[in-house]
Parts: sequence; structure tokens; C-alpha cells
Amino acid sequence: MTDCAQFIDRAKKIVGRDHCHTLPEQRAVYAYDAAVSDYMPGVVVFPADTAQVEQLVLLANKTNTPVTPRGAGTGMTGGSVAVCGGAVVVFSRMNRIISIDSQNLVACVQPGVITGKFQEAVEEKGLFYPPDPSSAAFSTIGGNVAQCAGGPRAVKYGVTRDYVLGLEAVTGKGEVISTGVKTAKGVVGYDLTRLIVGSAGTLALITRIFLRLLPLPESVRTLTAVFDRMEDAAGAVAQLFAAKIICRSIEYLDKAAIACAEKAMAAGLPTDAGALLLLEVDGDLASTESLAAKALEVCRQAGASQVAGLEDPERAKLYWKARKALSPALYQYGPHKINEDIVVPRNRIPQMVERINQIRERTGLTMVSFGHAGDGNIHVNIMLDKSDLAAAKKAEQAVEEIFDYTLELGGTISGEHGVGLTKAPYFSKEIGPASHRIMKEIKKVFDPNSILNPGKMP
Amino acid sequence: MTDCAQFIDRAKKIVGRDHCHTLPEQRAVYAYDAAVSDYMPGVVVFPADTAQVEQLVLLANKTNTPVTPRGAGTGMTGGSVAVCGGAVVVFSRMNRIISIDSQNLVACVQPGVITGKFQEAVEEKGLFYPPDPSSAAFSTIGGNVAQCAGGPRAVKYGVTRDYVLGLEAVTGKGEVISTGVKTAKGVVGYDLTRLIVGSAGTLALITRIFLRLLPLPESVRTLTAVFDRMEDAAGAVAQLFAAKIICRSIEYLDKAAIACAEKAMAAGLPTDAGALLLLEVDGDLASTESLAAKALEVCRQAGASQVAGLEDPERAKLYWKARKALSPALYQYGPHKINEDIVVPRNRIPQMVERINQIRERTGLTMVSFGHAGDGNIHVNIMLDKSDLAAAKKAEQAVEEIFDYTLELGGTISGEHGVGLTKAPYFSKEIGPASHRIMKEIKKVFDPNSILNPGKMP
Repeated sequence: MTDCAQFIDRAKKIVGRDHCHTLPEQRAVYAYDAAVSDYMPGVVVFPADTAQVEQLVLLANKTNTPVTPRGAGTGMTGGSVAVCGGAVVVFSRMNRIISIDSQNLVACVQPGVITGKFQEAVEEKGLFYPPDPSSAAFSTIGGNVAQCAGGPRAVKYGVTRDYVLGLEAVTGKGEVISTGVKTAKGVVGYDLTRLIVGSAGTLALITRIFLRLLPLPESVRTLTAVFDRMEDAAGAVAQLFAAKIICRSIEYLDKAAIACAEKAMAAGLPTDAGALLLLEVDGDLASTESLAAKALEVCRQAGASQVAGLEDPERAKLYWKARKALSPALYQYGPHKINEDIVVPRNRIPQMVERINQIRERTGLTMVSFGHAGDGNIHVNIMLDKSDLAAAKKAEQAVEEIFDYTLELGGTISGEHGVGLTKAPYFSKEIGPASHRIMKEIKKVFDPNSILNPGKMP
Repeated sequence: MTDCAQFIDRAKKIVGRDHCHTLPEQRAVYAYDAAVSDYMPGVVVFPADTAQVEQLVLLANKTNTPVTPRGAGTGMTGGSVAVCGGAVVVFSRMNRIISIDSQNLVACVQPGVITGKFQEAVEEKGLFYPPDPSSAAFSTIGGNVAQCAGGPRAVKYGVTRDYVLGLEAVTGKGEVISTGVKTAKGVVGYDLTRLIVGSAGTLALITRIFLRLLPLPESVRTLTAVFDRMEDAAGAVAQLFAAKIICRSIEYLDKAAIACAEKAMAAGLPTDAGALLLLEVDGDLASTESLAAKALEVCRQAGASQVAGLEDPERAKLYWKARKALSPALYQYGPHKINEDIVVPRNRIPQMVERINQIRERTGLTMVSFGHAGDGNIHVNIMLDKSDLAAAKKAEQAVEEIFDYTLELGGTISGEHGVGLTKAPYFSKEIGPASHRIMKEIKKVFDPNSILNPGKMP
């Protein structure tokens, strides 16, 4: 028996004995995410519907049991781990695509739907759900909404927030609320929808999501541009925007990232290059071709040693697969990863890259950078063995310096991963005391007993 | 002297005597908006900067003086009138475009900037700020943000909310907060930015706005489609979406609206038609032409008696001017207007139009419909003389029936005007008690003494 015996006893009656996991080997599977591990929950519960979620939250309030919601556990900041023990609520049984309405370009899904499966389902109908975090093949829409996931296509299409029209959710008090609309527009009352988006399950458990869809673009083309120096690649990004060329994705990989992705996927990446830009343009056939030609020309003029429009879709797919495999593949550089996702104004990328290089040289740390250059969103990864205490100390100082410089450049310490556990110590660098007070009080409005995902909102 | 003598006395020291209007003839100018009138403020104050706004709010808290923020007073629901008296704070002196950053596609403005002037300023740099409420020539960005203004281009480009990256604002407690980011992405903390967007100045006074920009489309084309019957025009809208043709604007005018706009502007509108669709497509030159041809073909097949692509930009401009003049021009039908902006799922427009026709026939009321058909956003206007109490009663019942049917169809009672005063009695039709409780408590978090725009959040 765990420390939340009373909760478990009654939770079994709510969700059924089979959907309430209490054995240590069952619970261990839910003790980690992509960033942190070893937070063993007292129980793992799998509700079947909104009514069960509601009853679980009411029960958690009565028994003072922490409730941590979890999609697929692919988060990058420890957002879905039960730092205070208690119950992990997993939404894998609530995984139905309820409707895809082609006439109104609106879909309704349960939170446990795998994002990639949803993308496929809408694409079969000639529709398009743009948000595409690298974890899309595994992560859930509910988790994406809770964290406001981004991904490469945000340059043109925005992030998860921009596609959420309305929600059904259970607040920390155990009230079922409907927020927002199922229509293109709506402004009645305060925007509770976007307040819940990105709140990492600290305000409410999301039980149903209304999503905006687009028509599937007629044509997509992947382009590559190889640079000797990372600084030139960063300059090319600024010049693409100056030329008013909006690609749907502008990804970059530095030298270490190219090597790492190539080792993982053998996609034929240019391992002798200093940096690689991976671009994607879309639209109707004619404008895609014209955009592609213009984008390649800008890259050439910005100093690319080699540019290519990948006409073979299989080859393009392989390149993107290599890009998406990067994050897990980094462990070939070390057993531990410190993974940041800072954002700077796009034209400040060269300065940020220079500073990262300086830090690398000064500290001797293994640092790998890649990310969504088109958004100024840089994934800086420090690979290390944390048992080497000197290296761990250096890494911590490096992160601090990177965050400070990010904010100095007018940026933010997290573009898409959220604060979770790992960035909590740095939260107050960015959020002032008055905003912080407001956030804490909003938390109390939704969740007066601090039942939902405790330990996550700083 | 008014009832807020103590406030006035000190406010004069904060903003200067000349920027503190106390004479009845001065105050009367700020006693109305586009929907309601006769709410005389005790004083009208014109702050010059954020520090003055902060001091005014602190003073208002000390003296228990209501503060109602005001842009240009073009709102459609009484959002900017001082229903509880006190101070109206007008942002006309805070009207600077602080920066337009072409490299990062971000602008920073003060709230008092006229939206139309801002549009012109960014267009001169080859950039584009899509939100375009019909009031754009007069209304302010601050007011647009406070109300989450929409407009015709929302079909493709979304509403004001979708362009606000971050804010500086003074809460009801008098704290200056910075929310959101100045970059393309950001997910640190709860989304206070979008909570303030659309909150109509009930949570905070907006003092600075960071806006996302786009490159100006290379080409824009206005199209018209004339229908004998409104039902066919509504059907054409559904068919445009079914054919996956995304126009940037899809406006419609019913017979009465066409006549009204033509009388106001003499634009050459087809006054014998049952309905008119006014479409706009954009993109690069080739895709604009191709989209235009496809859209016109869909309209033809949906039963349009006449379609045209307006190649003469002056003629197109005149049509849009006529469309934008509609709202004020309606007063030729009666001295009072009840102006709703319901939204239904796009494919439900035919049903809504049919119901509006039934109500018109049954009641004999003068009803004029037009609006953003591409969003399902219908401006239903009832023109009447409110001194005719029988007509007023009938109109009230008609509004009630329209709202109920809107919600039955899965819609919302306001797409862009907000709740303000005029829709407050209907708020609880759409917002459930738990959400309502949350909104009221959020109000208290920002504004514990109910200083900001009292009487507006139901």
C-alpha cells in the first residue's frame, strides 16, 4: 500500500480495478519524462471519460492527494512527473478523435489522441493541423495543449495555442468547465482557453479539445543549405526575413548536431559542414516553386557553399526524420543532457551563436545547438556526466549565462518546452514579482487546495 | 465640482491641469460610444505615459474612484462608457508608434495609436498588420486589443489576439506588469497576455503593445458575387470552404444592407439583388489570380447571377468603403440600433439566415444583416425607435430568440464586439456558473477594489 491508500481505494471504484495501477513495477513506468526521472507516483490512474476525471479530482481534494496529469511523458522539463507523489492521471484511454468537420474546419478530440495520428487523420481528408513538435509521433494532443507545444512549422503557422478554439476541462476544484468556442471567432468573457493552454495541468485537467484546421497545402518542398560557418547560416535566416520570404520551417543544425543526426539516421547529411539549414516552403504548386527558388538564392548569397531543393520526397522525409531523431540521439555525447529552448529576436541569432561558441571554448563543455532558427528558438544542449561535479557546476553556470544573455537580447528562456521543474529556478529572471503574484493567485482560483501538478508553478 | 473632487484635485498634479477635463461640455464628449450614450463621467484624464497611468490607478484606489479606459469610443457594446461615473482615462496622448522592426517582424506601439495609421506605417515598409475592424480609420490599437477586435480579414488571418505578442499594462492594483514576449514564441508562466486581450479594460490598462507583423502580400484582388437569394449566398460560403479555398475576406450584405450601403456611398452596388458576397483573395501574383478564378467559379455554381473580379483597385476600394460605412449608415432605417455580432459554424449560416427571415416576417421589425460570413460572424441589426415601446419589446424578444438559436447551433453570442453593457444580460446564456465564478475571481486578482471599468464584467 502506498501513502495515498484512501485515494486508491476509492479511485478503483471510479475507474475500475484494472485501470488503477499500484504495483511498483507499474508505477515506475510513469516516474519519468524526457528530462527527469525517479519521481515515483503513489498510484497511476487511467480514467475513461470526463465524469471519471471529475470524480478523481473531487476525491483528490477530499483526500488531499496530488494529481499530476500525463499524456505520453515526452515533455522536456519534468512537467508531467509527480514530484509530490500522489496520483498520476494518464489519458491514454481518452484517445478518441470525436469529429473532424471538413465544412467548418474544426476538429474535436480527447486529450489522449497521439498528435501524429491526428495529423494523419486530418490529412486523409485534405486538411492540415500544423503544430508539429518533434515528439509528434508519440506525444498527445492533450500534452501538446498543456505545454503549448511548438515545432518547426511555427515560423509560418504558429504554435499549438493558435489552433485551440475551446476546451472542456476539470478545474482543480473538480468543476467541469467549457471554455472558448467551436467557431472561428468568439470574445465572450475572459480568455480561459488560452489561460489553460500552456499551464501544464496546474489549473485544470483537459478532457476535450476543439481545434482549428486548415486546408492541406497543395505542395511542400524541403530545401537544404550548407554553410562553412554557423554565423553565416544565422545571417541567412535574418536575410530570408529581410527579403520577406516566409518559409514554413527554418531549422538549423550546428556541426555537432549534424554529426549526431547523421550517426543516428545515416541520412547523408554533410558532416564536414559548419552548419546546415533545413527549410520547408509550401503553398500552391506555382508559389511553392517560386518561394523555393527565392529562398535558395538568398542562402547562396548569404554564403551557403551548397544549396538544394530536395525533389525526391523520400529523401526530404529522411532529412526530417534525422532532424526529429536529434534530441534522443544526443545521448551519444554523454549520459546526461541539459536541454534549453531559449528564444531570441531572429536577427539576434548570430550574437547568441557567438556567445554559445565562446562559452563552449571557455568551459570545454560538450554543447550541441539546433532548433527553430526561423523563430529565433534555439535548442542549446549541454551533454555531460553529472557525476563529474566540476562539469555539472560549469554546466549550471553556462545555463545561467545563456539565460541572462537571452533576456538581455530581448528573448525568453522557453519557447516551447515550458518551465516545469528544470527551469523553475530561473523563472523569476523573466517574470517580475507583480506578474508572479497574479499567476499564483490565478492558480488558487482554479485549484485552491493545490491538488493539480503541485511543485510545478513556481 | 463633481463627486470625485479628491481624485480630480490630485489627478491634475499627475497629468497637468490641461489634461484633466472637468467642464460638463468637455465631459459630455466622452459620455457615449457607438452603442450607448448618456453616461457622464466625473472627469476625463489624458495621461502622457505609463508612470502617469500607474499614479492615476493608485490614486483611484485610494479615493475609490472608478476608472474607465477609452480609446476612440468606437465600441459597439458600451465597453468604454463610465457607467459608474468617476474618471474616463483617454489614451490619445499615448499615440506613438515606438518601433517597427522589419527584421524581426515585430512592432511596439502605445495604445492610443489609430489602427489605420499603424496599418499605413507598416505597409510603407512592405509589412502587414492584418486585423482590420471596420472602425480602423478611427479606432485605436489599445481599444482593439482590449476588445479583441476582428474585421473582414479574420477568415485567413485571425483576429487581434493572434497578433499580440506581449503587453505592458497597469493592473487594477496599480502594478506595472510586462506580459508575454517580444519574440515569435514564448511559454514562460501563465498566458497573462491573452487574458488581458479582450478583457475590455476590466483587468488592466494597456500602456504598450508588442505586435506580430507579416510581409505585405504581393497581390490582393476583390471579387463580387451577386445572388437573388440570401440562402444561396450563404450556401456559396459553405462551398468555398468545402472546396478548400481560403479567401482572406468573405463578407456578405443582405438586400437591406446593400440598399443602405449604396445610399451612403453610391458605389454602384446591385440594389436589386437579394444578397451580395464581397470576397478578397491575396498571395503572390499567380496564386491570387488562380484563387480568384476558383472562388468565382464556386460562386457561379452556387447560383450567383453575376460574378466579377474587380481589376480596378479604385473600384474595389469604393466597394470596401461602402461596406465599412454600413454600420453608421444604418440609422437611415431608424433612430436606434440593436447591433449583434453572433457567430455560428460556417455551414449553419443558411439556417441562421432562414431564422432571421422568419423573425423579420413574424415581427415586422426592420432587420438588416451583413458581416463576416467567412467566419460565420453575422451582424444582425434591428433598427427601431425605442420610444415605440411595443417595437422595443418585440426587438428584445427577437434578440433573445436569435441568441438562443445561435447557441443551439453551436455558436457564440459575440464574435468581436464583446459583452460590454449591451450583452451583459445574456452573458450567462453562454458562460456556465463555474467559468463565471473563475472569471469573477480573476477580476479580483487583478483589481481587488473593482476600480477598473466597473459594471462591465457581469
